[in-house]
Amino acid sequence: MAELGWPTEGISYGGDYNPEQWPRHVWDDDVALMRDAGVNLVSVGIFSWGLLEPREGEYDFAWLDDLLDLLHRNGIAVDLGTPTASPPAWFYATYPESRVVTRDGTTLGFGSRGMVSPSSPAYRAAAVRVATELARRYADHPAVVLWHVHNEYGAPVGEDYSPVSVAAFRDWLRERHGSLDALNAAWGTAFWGQVYRDWEHVGAPAATASTANPAQRLDFARFTDHQLRACFRLERDAIRAHATQPITTNFMAHQSYNTDLWAWAREVDVVSDDHYLWSPDPDAHVGLALSADLTRSVARGRPWILMEHSTSAVNWQGRNVAKRPGEMHRNAFTHLGRGADGIMFFQWRASRSGAEKFHSAMLPHAGTASRVFTEVVDLGARLARVAELRGSRVHADVAVLYDWESLWAQDLEWRPSDALGFRERVRTYYERLWRDGVTVDFAHPLDDLSRYRLVVAPASYLLTAAAGENLTRYVEDGGTLLVSCFAGVVDEHDAVHEGGFGAPLRAALGVAVEEFLPLREGETCEVALDGTAVGTDTWTEHLVLDGAQVRGTYRGGPADGMPAVTRHARGSGTGWYVSTALGVDALAPVLAAVYADAGVVPPGRPEGLEVVTRRAEDADYVVVVNHRDEAVKVDVQGTELLTDAVAAGVAQVGAGDVAVFRTARDAQGGGR
Amino acid sequence: MAELGWPTEGISYGGDYNPEQWPRHVWDDDVALMRDAGVNLVSVGIFSWGLLEPREGEYDFAWLDDLLDLLHRNGIAVDLGTPTASPPAWFYATYPESRVVTRDGTTLGFGSRGMVSPSSPAYRAAAVRVATELARRYADHPAVVLWHVHNEYGAPVGEDYSPVSVAAFRDWLRERHGSLDALNAAWGTAFWGQVYRDWEHVGAPAATASTANPAQRLDFARFTDHQLRACFRLERDAIRAHATQPITTNFMAHQSYNTDLWAWAREVDVVSDDHYLWSPDPDAHVGLALSADLTRSVARGRPWILMEHSTSAVNWQGRNVAKRPGEMHRNAFTHLGRGADGIMFFQWRASRSGAEKFHSAMLPHAGTASRVFTEVVDLGARLARVAELRGSRVHADVAVLYDWESLWAQDLEWRPSDALGFRERVRTYYERLWRDGVTVDFAHPLDDLSRYRLVVAPASYLLTAAAGENLTRYVEDGGTLLVSCFAGVVDEHDAVHEGGFGAPLRAALGVAVEEFLPLREGETCEVALDGTAVGTDTWTEHLVLDGAQVRGTYRGGPADGMPAVTRHARGSGTGWYVSTALGVDALAPVLAAVYADAGVVPPGRPEGLEVVTRRAEDADYVVVVNHRDEAVKVDVQGTELLTDAVAAGVAQVGAGDVAVFRTARDAQGGGR
Amino acid sequence: MAELGWPTEGISYGGDYNPEQWPRHVWDDDVALMRDAGVNLVSVGIFSWGLLEPREGEYDFAWLDDLLDLLHRNGIAVDLGTPTASPPAWFYATYPESRVVTRDGTTLGFGSRGMVSPSSPAYRAAAVRVATELARRYADHPAVVLWHVHNEYGAPVGEDYSPVSVAAFRDWLRERHGSLDALNAAWGTAFWGQVYRDWEHVGAPAATASTANPAQRLDFARFTDHQLRACFRLERDAIRAHATQPITTNFMAHQSYNTDLWAWAREVDVVSDDHYLWSPDPDAHVGLALSADLTRSVARGRPWILMEHSTSAVNWQGRNVAKRPGEMHRNAFTHLGRGADGIMFFQWRASRSGAEKFHSAMLPHAGTASRVFTEVVDLGARLARVAELRGSRVHADVAVLYDWESLWAQDLEWRPSDALGFRERVRTYYERLWRDGVTVDFAHPLDDLSRYRLVVAPASYLLTAAAGENLTRYVEDGGTLLVSCFAGVVDEHDAVHEGGFGAPLRAALGVAVEEFLPLREGETCEVALDGTAVGTDTWTEHLVLDGAQVRGTYRGGPADGMPAVTRHARGSGTGWYVSTALGVDALAPVLAAVYADAGVVPPGRPEGLEVVTRRAEDADYVVVVNHRDEAVKVDVQGTELLTDAVAAGVAQVGAGDVAVFRTARDAQGGGR
Repeated sequence: MAELGWPTEGISYGGDYNPEQWPRHVWDDDVALMRDAGVNLVSVGIFSWGLLEPREGEYDFAWLDDLLDLLHRNGIAVDLGTPTASPPAWFYATYPESRVVTRDGTTLGFGSRGMVSPSSPAYRAAAVRVATELARRYADHPAVVLWHVHNEYGAPVGEDYSPVSVAAFRDWLRERHGSLDALNAAWGTAFWGQVYRDWEHVGAPAATASTANPAQRLDFARFTDHQLRACFRLERDAIRAHATQPITTNFMAHQSYNTDLWAWAREVDVVSDDHYLWSPDPDAHVGLALSADLTRSVARGRPWILMEHSTSAVNWQGRNVAKRPGEMHRNAFTHLGRGADGIMFFQWRASRSGAEKFHSAMLPHAGTASRVFTEVVDLGARLARVAELRGSRVHADVAVLYDWESLWAQDLEWRPSDALGFRERVRTYYERLWRDGVTVDFAHPLDDLSRYRLVVAPASYLLTAAAGENLTRYVEDGGTLLVSCFAGVVDEHDAVHEGGFGAPLRAALGVAVEEFLPLREGETCEVALDGTAVGTDTWTEHLVLDGAQVRGTYRGGPADGMPAVTRHARGSGTGWYVSTALGVDALAPVLAAVYADAGVVPPGRPEGLEVVTRRAEDADYVVVVNHRDEAVKVDVQGTELLTDAVAAGVAQVGAGDVAVFRTARDAQGGGR
Repeated sequence: MAELGWPTEGISYGGDYNPEQWPRHVWDDDVALMRDAGVNLVSVGIFSWGLLEPREGEYDFAWLDDLLDLLHRNGIAVDLGTPTASPPAWFYATYPESRVVTRDGTTLGFGSRGMVSPSSPAYRAAAVRVATELARRYADHPAVVLWHVHNEYGAPVGEDYSPVSVAAFRDWLRERHGSLDALNAAWGTAFWGQVYRDWEHVGAPAATASTANPAQRLDFARFTDHQLRACFRLERDAIRAHATQPITTNFMAHQSYNTDLWAWAREVDVVSDDHYLWSPDPDAHVGLALSADLTRSVARGRPWILMEHSTSAVNWQGRNVAKRPGEMHRNAFTHLGRGADGIMFFQWRASRSGAEKFHSAMLPHAGTASRVFTEVVDLGARLARVAELRGSRVHADVAVLYDWESLWAQDLEWRPSDALGFRERVRTYYERLWRDGVTVDFAHPLDDLSRYRLVVAPASYLLTAAAGENLTRYVEDGGTLLVSCFAGVVDEHDAVHEGGFGAPLRAALGVAVEEFLPLREGETCEVALDGTAVGTDTWTEHLVLDGAQVRGTYRGGPADGMPAVTRHARGSGTGWYVSTALGVDALAPVLAAVYADAGVVPPGRPEGLEVVTRRAEDADYVVVVNHRDEAVKVDVQGTELLTDAVAAGVAQVGAGDVAVFRTARDAQGGGR
Repeated sequence: MAELGWPTEGISYGGDYNPEQWPRHVWDDDVALMRDAGVNLVSVGIFSWGLLEPREGEYDFAWLDDLLDLLHRNGIAVDLGTPTASPPAWFYATYPESRVVTRDGTTLGFGSRGMVSPSSPAYRAAAVRVATELARRYADHPAVVLWHVHNEYGAPVGEDYSPVSVAAFRDWLRERHGSLDALNAAWGTAFWGQVYRDWEHVGAPAATASTANPAQRLDFARFTDHQLRACFRLERDAIRAHATQPITTNFMAHQSYNTDLWAWAREVDVVSDDHYLWSPDPDAHVGLALSADLTRSVARGRPWILMEHSTSAVNWQGRNVAKRPGEMHRNAFTHLGRGADGIMFFQWRASRSGAEKFHSAMLPHAGTASRVFTEVVDLGARLARVAELRGSRVHADVAVLYDWESLWAQDLEWRPSDALGFRERVRTYYERLWRDGVTVDFAHPLDDLSRYRLVVAPASYLLTAAAGENLTRYVEDGGTLLVSCFAGVVDEHDAVHEGGFGAPLRAALGVAVEEFLPLREGETCEVALDGTAVGTDTWTEHLVLDGAQVRGTYRGGPADGMPAVTRHARGSGTGWYVSTALGVDALAPVLAAVYADAGVVPPGRPEGLEVVTRRAEDADYVVVVNHRDEAVKVDVQGTELLTDAVAAGVAQVGAGDVAVFRTARDAQGGGR
């Protein structure tokens, strides 16, 4: 990730712009309205391969020349997309072997959007060719300030079981494992008689009579990530051969499945992310904050671009809830507060046709007189007022571990309980921290964690021995580690650690896990803590103490009377273990005790008042998002940027409103 | 639809008769029992292709000759089926390319019933050949009074994604759109880069990575309807070349999915329909009435034949509820009252073998001493007593709009809420009208509606500009129009109307829909009406008044305080809009106000007392079906045909019983 | 089933042993620990084809020689598996046409465990070859005391729709039906025009547009069973050509679907069975008892081996509940009490890798200090103390009918209610009998039933005329027969009996079933019995008395006022009919009356106290399993074998504990 200048002055603001759907005269209206709204950046060309290369090797750039010139004349910068997420009809017809085959053998054809096989040589060649043509033509166009490769790698389809993919998987496995003996050992093929004697017999984990080899599936997930990333690198390098602007591709944070964003973030010049609220969740703004923190974390703290979010409802969920007045502003300022220096939408103008016509837009079907467009114009104006935030950084004393390999592994079949999931556990622990007002980074288990007062591991099913050593060292050196149940179970091959469940964490936590005791659906029990008791369901464990103190005890359920929560002093630090799947409320007393150990002091603000601080060289910026239905007072000293009001110690933020205070640079240092 | 004589004297009565399943001696028993039961028409040969043409081009008509002669000798007329809904084993073996392929690529083989591809040239040729042979042989047979082409076109399978079908789809698209440019415009292929440059690249909307192009899917639904109808026309014309009897094919009314019955009804000489109660629905008789009214409406008011219903339980639902004593009579008389001049069953004698052996029949497994057979005999006698009804017509002052294109479009993926459905809305509005005792026709949005006092549009998601003009003209000319939510959203290409949601109805309704506000699962709010309040769930909208008055206001929910129900005076008429998905009870106060506007006066009878009037030249026939558990008094003057009792102003109809009164011709004119 | 000596001295104890997953030095540890645990038998080689035959025709037996020698040196006998349930990678690559194709056309590949097509000639040849090689090499090895052919035939996949299978199905049909005319008659192909004129047109009942021919599907189920059994026989005979030890294959009792265990049990020298608790069921131990009784019954009363069960949780259910302390002992003693002379587990040592690493084992991941290993050692010791039970037999006065053909037929589509199922009814009636403390055998409807006081038919949907005659004779000769609803409906071709539903049982029961009256979901009614009333749901019937007395009457529901439960005196016996699907509690008063008729006297013990008696030449052994949370007193006289305590009329069995009493040989004769 090279250090290049930020693509726009001030906060980037705009959205996807696909004017090829409208007659030319609409473009002029669009540009005038963009200026009204303060738009300074639009993403162009993301799905236009079929227009740019109408027949293989024939290009038509006239319309794009026109568009870029128009935008530039109006002072709107361009994030220029490569269109490779949606190969044209001719590509499918000419290279049918490039089509994706699903796990159960269905071939996916043309007529939606993406994607063909990332392993297809024909696809890779065609993608490099069109990216090269675009870079060659527009590298020096003054409108172009950013390159946007592809779109949401891994969605709507990641894994491919076609012959083309199987052949590539074999090559990747040879590279990874070196020999069949090594592969047989890593995959544990001695079980169920799966030993391989010939590389040609190794395939993808497609439909089988019973459950497929889990290590094979885990490797296939890694391979899928690798192939997608290889496609990105090919396009990125093709662009870089001609162009100097920063290059990005849009991630999906907590919704990214096939892409290990820790690795991806190293490949881009600037991280960008797409986020959409999940309608069934009445607290979807907590998931939004999680997503923003995760994005900033994979960007290693550097400013990032919210490349897509929605002005109101989306169209692809079951019941697509519209945003209520003010909600879009709150969402945008949460992203901003958590490190985004660009606030972009999908998309500028609502499409009349196609699969996404019911997706909201900056300019909705209802037109410029609408509530949504009014809020879009207001948001542009507000972002202009907070432009000085650009480049400032978020600081956190707490890290939450997040590892896509563990997500992939835990999601496989035949785990002790299918009710215990990676994403749910991460969200629940995150939500507890969010409600406590504690700002967090996410971290990889192998990261240097020494700058954090507290490290939380909500879902570390797969944890390598090296990661276990890293966490143990962190504790020994004075850190506080909080580990949730079903952790440290398997190694990088999804093999149970020698020494049993949780072996890599035994030293840090002072407990051994003898047996998992999942609960039946509807079954509950209690955990008696110091002076209180909380309910739990889903999961319990049979713990054996190996030095730890008991801080919570099961009452009822299969682990009745056994330790539930433990605390272990190790070296200069402390290791906590929670052997059950506590909910957000039940976690409160546990976290309170852990904070005390770690020296983390939650701010004690009312729940629903979201406050994050961004630090610049000379000032701190306190971004406040009030999710409550009533005005709230905040302790703050400084100038509120949206209103120029001066707060002398306390300021009121209206119901559902946002505020940004410039305050003196916080003296308080970070971490331990 | 030519005007041919009715196939039987009196009301047609009988059922499917498939004696090929039994030894010859059973046929004689059957015919004797049919006579006992008053059967005067049976449908023969519907699944007998494999018997009639044992090898390709070899025919065996001997058994059918025998059967028709036997029936004729016994005075039972024949509705002679073409057997093309179930091609023989040899057809599948000889023409495997004719097999249907499902959307996800599964090929459907032999061994059930139908169907191969309606686009297969081999199938079409074979179907025409066997129909021709039948027509040639039996055109002059005195038993044959009606031809029954195929069976339930579109069921059990309609869409076909085989190569044969894809090729035909391309031809159909060329014909429909003329050029690729027109197709690209209609389908909005500029979105997601789906533009086509070569007809050979255009395919069926089979499995894709994400959602397929909705306009393509809508065209594929039209194409499917067209191909099925083309098959019907080929057979019909082959018969007509030799025979003069009327020709029909059996529809499925509200359960018809792949067939646009407005178009189909124009192709047949007499409309016929199959209807089965839906077991999970405790008020399935309301759905039955809907089905009957819809059938009569596509027949444009002319008498029709209930070709199939059941004497008791069916076999293909999850829990197949048997009819209770008297229920079959009520069902039959509802069909009769709503315009059926034929009451037929599937099937005469219950099958011992095969997939439908648990389907009830006129002669059940329990034999002639059974309750069911007794009721069958009684029903035959009763139908004979009401023979004079034949040819009389039902009159309605109210029309309910029904458009299969809108059903197809609304059923596609990625709508604002998957909880809002076409069929549910039609049923709910219909049920309100049914409970109010208001007789309705169904109508197409482009029909001349001027004869109706009130037009109700429960589910007009797809509404063309022309249809919008038609409805506006209807209002301006003095009509009352009631439109339910999510209406007038898209045009014939599933593209959002220019001008936004509901644009074609803005003039008639005086409102604009700024945004859809679907509710989450379980979320509810209220609508405050004049003097009352009703609950609602599923759906609300953000309305902007453009001349309309507010007649209901949201309380709670995302539209809190906004207009929910509006009334607009336009020209000489009135346009009502209900922007939420009200239930049957909640609709009562709204409809009461709308009736008042329209001059519709509900009869005020107890709910569950179903009364429909059929008008003949000289008399009206009041058909009464009492669904209540108690006897009910009806205001009526005349002779009850089943009992010859004379009613002088009031008559009692027993609990669960039926009655038909001949009354003086109603002076009251219809419509406005 | 030949009479060969029992494979071990005393009760066989051990488990699957797959040491190929560990380095050689672990084997020595394993064997030492096995000795500690009292293990005397291990199953070896079950999934080792890929190791034994690394390339086609090349064998590597060195490791197995080593293993068998090691075990023998340590006094541990070997149940030697043939590895044919999991063909090697090279087999799939060399013979791709042998792969199984699912009903909807998905081809199942390598990488899980089993299975290829049982109809594949290549597979059969390869299986015979490897079995022959094993038999030749190890027939005389002193460790080998038992041969274990394959693994769980029919799981994880039974039916195969590949071309190889279709060709074999045709041959099987020719053999079964003789002629196409006979096949057409048996399948009722006259319905829906399915008549066949050429054997080449007959296929497997794969994906079709609507429901496939049920008789075809039933024959396909029979064919699947036949092909699997043919594979077993080929391997068995290959072994027998060289070896003299008994040969078995492991069944799955009530979970066996594709295998008719009545037929299979005739093919093996000793019956063995696998059983796992079903986690969602809080009374899974009742299902366990059912499974054990069914296994003993197919073994025709002879001792059998519990080949697999689990020490604690399994891994393949949704939420895999671990066994609680003592539960494994209770499970083992229930099997023992119901006739098992071998108590084996899957598996000895928990796997670190692969799909089953979360399956519990005798030696768990937590190692030898664990609760589970401690209980395993204890169990070994306890089994040694009860060795004298070996060879004793269980006696029952009551038989429950069980017929896999009826299961297959009832499971097909389009039955009157999909809420009424074979397995549920068998379990419910069994549970009633279990709670009443009545020991039962299972029996086939064609068995000689004369030795039973009572025969219960919980789910006899398919009942041949011959079976009906057998049951009628049983009643006439003095037996008491209790038949549950939906019985005697179809014959061996799934054709409704001439004479209507239940015709084969009319004489025995004195009732005719006129019509089935299934209830809607959530609908309930009552059955008024003598002095009490019980609730019911799901199912009622319209009965017509033909000599029977009414013993229960419907109150409410569609059969309101009609007979619900009837009793018929016929010859010297009695036939009871329960026309509704009563639950376990509701059955209590009905069974009480039936017991009285039959002269069956339930012991009147507290529910949850399980007592079964095994009879030897000189003594009876009373096996007591206390499922209650409190100690319970049992009336018994004799010596408790686990403790050597002497019970003089009464003994206490602790909460959750087990006991085995040697008592004097029970004088009481069995049966009538």
